[in-house]
Amino acid sequence: MRNLRLVVAYDGTNYAGWQFQVNGPSIQERVERAWSKVTRERVRIIASGRTDAGVHARCQVCSVSTHCDLECDKLVRALSVNLPDDIVVEKVLPAPDGFHAIRDAVCKSYRYRIVAGLVRDVMELRHAWHVPMILDLDAMQQAARCFRGEHDFASFQAVGSRRLTTVRNVLDLEVDAVRRDGRQYISIRVTADGFLYNMVRIMAGSLVQVGRGRRTVQSVAGALLAADRNAAGQTAPAHGLCLESVCYGGWCNCGAGECPGKMLVP
Amino acid sequence: MRNLRLVVAYDGTNYAGWQFQVNGPSIQERVERAWSKVTRERVRIIASGRTDAGVHARCQVCSVSTHCDLECDKLVRALSVNLPDDIVVEKVLPAPDGFHAIRDAVCKSYRYRIVAGLVRDVMELRHAWHVPMILDLDAMQQAARCFRGEHDFASFQAVGSRRLTTVRNVLDLEVDAVRRDGRQYISIRVTADGFLYNMVRIMAGSLVQVGRGRRTVQSVAGALLAADRNAAGQTAPAHGLCLESVCYGGWCNCGAGECPGKMLVP
Repeated sequence: MRNLRLVVAYDGTNYAGWQFQVNGPSIQERVERAWSKVTRERVRIIASGRTDAGVHARCQVCSVSTHCDLECDKLVRALSVNLPDDIVVEKVLPAPDGFHAIRDAVCKSYRYRIVAGLVRDVMELRHAWHVPMILDLDAMQQAARCFRGEHDFASFQAVGSRRLTTVRNVLDLEVDAVRRDGRQYISIRVTADGFLYNMVRIMAGSLVQVGRGRRTVQSVAGALLAADRNAAGQTAPAHGLCLESVCYGGWCNCGAGECPGKMLVP
Repeated sequence: MRNLRLVVAYDGTNYAGWQFQVNGPSIQERVERAWSKVTRERVRIIASGRTDAGVHARCQVCSVSTHCDLECDKLVRALSVNLPDDIVVEKVLPAPDGFHAIRDAVCKSYRYRIVAGLVRDVMELRHAWHVPMILDLDAMQQAARCFRGEHDFASFQAVGSRRLTTVRNVLDLEVDAVRRDGRQYISIRVTADGFLYNMVRIMAGSLVQVGRGRRTVQSVAGALLAADRNAAGQTAPAHGLCLESVCYGGWCNCGAGECPGKMLVP
């Protein structure tokens, strides 16, 4: 058996999420179908984590064990022609023995994108949340600092999630904006050792409330301490979210200074 | 009667073009419908030029004569809420007496976007043409220089077009590229005093042939002299094209150094 690492990118607009669903097409289903067309082999393709309906990925990492001996470059081309336009296999790479995309992940980065300003940007409809007013970027950046480091993020997970621990370590968090044509193009990039369900979307929703002046900077720090979903802000819509990188021991592509992927031997 | 200038932006993916069509929804139809909802008045909204099915616009300029006395800012908001998400009225401005969006236009700028590289970029599917190989940017830039200035562009218009003259003055033409993740993100920006039917798309198709090494730089100059559609390259697909600006006497937003809009008194 050969162990491979697949890097998959997708525009999630037309999918019910990564994982098999009864209520709509999933990205996993499409990738596994392309795999079986190319290799004539039925395998399970395991992604670093599920992404929800409408969420995008630039760099979803998957593990697969296969008997197929096609060269990696040929697999990239063959898989991509057998996938719909909005899903693509960017890379196929050899992986260490026993490589597992979920278990072995050491950190991930997400980007949440917002277009702020009275008039929506019609070119960004699928990939950014439109908030119809200019936001106080300075306040958002201040509030975002509260999230850095190790905290209990219980307030920042969807109600009903069951995780053993809600403590996560946010290694990096940057809020940047570019102003163009009377709008702010805001990017919130978060790198952490793991994420709770809806964590980035609730962080983004809370930061937007700060940017609108509906919530103080202090209340974000307060929400962290409260360990109560009601203390945090709204869940921002799925289509602004994109999984940007997943790092493994010795295989880092997140760019964060302190990424544990850099420090671990593969 | 009040004369107004409307600046309209749209993602053309889901439309049969600007102008009323029997075979699908048009942008004109949607904007006029929104106008009549807001003002209770049926008017004809005239755009600077038709855009084809699938072509986008960041700054389509329209003229309208109206009895409506709503403030411009209020019109912007009211029209935008009555339009589908992929069409928006960015600005409403007072226009000089008798202002006519087609007749008075002095120059226009289009941008054609290409993503070049083996693997497509799933986030750019709607707004850029994917060419599955790295292109010779230097050769494309050299070939693009042939287009600058006043020429007979008869080779660069769709067969069957009937224009009195096929001479146009290309005031500015820039081919730029950014490299990211093994791909080239190429932008071809053309400013001219007017365009023939499919002119930018045939220019882009010809430049891509140069970039692929299937056509020499000299053959582009040759195509201009030939005044024959067969001498030029293929018509690039519609979805890579975007109307970026339209200038009028005293009202210039194209950024070209020699734009006649800057030199004319309004």
